Amino acid sequence: MADTEVLAEDELIRTYLAPLAAGFPGAFGLEDDCAVLTPEPGRDLVVTTDAIAEGVHYLAADPPEDVGWKALAVNVSDLAGKAARPVAYLMALAFPQAPSGDWMAGFAGGLREAQQAFGCHLIGGDTDRRPGPPSITITAMGYVPAGCMLRRGSARAGDRLFVSGTIGDARLGLALATGSWPGSGLSTAERSALIRRYRRPAPRLALAAALLQHGHAAMDVSDGLVLDLGRMCRAGGVGAVLRLATVPLSVVVARVLAAGGIALEDLATGGDDYEILAAVAPEQAAQFAASAAAAGVGVTDVGEVVEAAAGLTVLGPDGRPVSLPRPGYTHF
Amino acid sequence: MADTEVLAEDELIRTYLAPLAAGFPGAFGLEDDCAVLTPEPGRDLVVTTDAIAEGVHYLAADPPEDVGWKALAVNVSDLAGKAARPVAYLMALAFPQAPSGDWMAGFAGGLREAQQAFGCHLIGGDTDRRPGPPSITITAMGYVPAGCMLRRGSARAGDRLFVSGTIGDARLGLALATGSWPGSGLSTAERSALIRRYRRPAPRLALAAALLQHGHAAMDVSDGLVLDLGRMCRAGGVGAVLRLATVPLSVVVARVLAAGGIALEDLATGGDDYEILAAVAPEQAAQFAASAAAAGVGVTDVGEVVEAAAGLTVLGPDGRPVSLPRPGYTHF
Repeated sequence: MADTEVLAEDELIRTYLAPLAAGFPGAFGLEDDCAVLTPEPGRDLVVTTDAIAEGVHYLAADPPEDVGWKALAVNVSDLAGKAARPVAYLMALAFPQAPSGDWMAGFAGGLREAQQAFGCHLIGGDTDRRPGPPSITITAMGYVPAGCMLRRGSARAGDRLFVSGTIGDARLGLALATGSWPGSGLSTAERSALIRRYRRPAPRLALAAALLQHGHAAMDVSDGLVLDLGRMCRAGGVGAVLRLATVPLSVVVARVLAAGGIALEDLATGGDDYEILAAVAPEQAAQFAASAAAAGVGVTDVGEVVEAAAGLTVLGPDGRPVSLPRPGYTHF
Repeated sequence: MADTEVLAEDELIRTYLAPLAAGFPGAFGLEDDCAVLTPEPGRDLVVTTDAIAEGVHYLAADPPEDVGWKALAVNVSDLAGKAARPVAYLMALAFPQAPSGDWMAGFAGGLREAQQAFGCHLIGGDTDRRPGPPSITITAMGYVPAGCMLRRGSARAGDRLFVSGTIGDARLGLALATGSWPGSGLSTAERSALIRRYRRPAPRLALAAALLQHGHAAMDVSDGLVLDLGRMCRAGGVGAVLRLATVPLSVVVARVLAAGGIALEDLATGGDDYEILAAVAPEQAAQFAASAAAAGVGVTDVGEVVEAAAGLTVLGPDGRPVSLPRPGYTHF
């Protein structure tokens, strides 16, 4: 068929999606309506679901390869926040009309890149036509050693708070991609790198060993560092102090910040970082950082866990508490 | 808050959804963004995902209790077709605007009824606002004895084909609910029963033991008996003969058929039956039917599996092949 023709449902599945199931016998080439997974002995299964929709979580102009990558990456990032190793995913697609062969080829190509990078397979799904923006809902599954899943709610007062990588790049990448920010003074390569952080989140799977060995609690940072830290506090019945001055920034973001192009508060509430927030006992902090570095991931101490009564305190660069009217992204 | 106020995302989750996770420790009261499942020894995990959207899979006028029930039931029906026992599900919600407290209370109530009937818990989810119709995407998980999942593609030439319950009730129920068919001559109770078949599918979980003991292949019938039988044939590399005269009908549907209110072909291609189609070796057929009956489910022999070269033949009441331009429901 010509690449721009619209696709029949069965053909869409057979041509573009079934190849993503090759190599996982329990997926039956997507010919069944269920998949089967034989759990690995001594492991627990960690499961999560997240949807992305055009115009909400990605832009209509985003290349389909990036949409495929992102749909899987945002779910795998949840697994990374639990120190889980991805194994499989299911995907429900909803389109207002059948997509073109070109779009599906790009989308499936991005999924293939992502599942190869993350070590998992597509094992089932659902395809619907309905009004509204295209959306992709993925349920991802991974393994942890039995009883060892890192919870969000198990931080303890006194723990150090670490953040992986850098915060705020995706926030600026989104502003560049939508044209809401001109990015004056940035090179083409710098612009591309920021936009890539928005379009191609890179789940921190490499942190799993360090988290399992040294972490008390962990989660991925996807809706804004401050909002997600607040969720960690609420789930654990603890408070926290976050020092904005210590939040790790890339060289480019630090330059934009210094030039007054964005406020530190906006970086810490921006969303789409897909980094890891971890609470680590103080006596384990140095070993955690060393273990993370050995895995190729930088982690930065950004504050500490305190008693619940103290609440969540965000300290500005001058060391004084700042008030943040909007701590991050929520849908309603 | 007043019942008709719109809901904030966190409140929606805490008030209406978190109670559905009570009793499943690995769901962490939906406070984490992942759930954890400790697989039962000696079991495989069967997983499936299906979405329902307003105006596509359910009607805007359907009571929210029925929408909640149906969202879970259509997924559990997939598990029933594999002889799996449900254990847990994840749910991604998408709404164009925050739902009212009234709607959410009804929806969550229907989900609670369904999960109690099917023996599973909500363990995770995602809630998004986006344009388009409300939609509910569920991923359901269940257990089968290791290595025993009934596949769609393992029917063998010579097998008898069985269908559980009755076919076509939901097709007429949908026509009644949309007003596209007046249902002349039906009592109020009969109308309600047909509409209930559309709104409240009842997955045939009770068939699991009979399927595991006697079945070669199985699947649920959701998109029309003829279409789904065609899928079983394609997946298994076999053909089939379906005798329309033997397709099991409820008393009401048989009366509508006799009165010329609908054609037999439309009943066999109508969708939303959520019955089980099973292929059983001929020497096991009587035992299968007896075992199903002992479990409270009637099953009816509707034809046989043949060699692939013979294709799928649908025989009309006169014993001659009929041609069906539209064998069932597809989205594209």
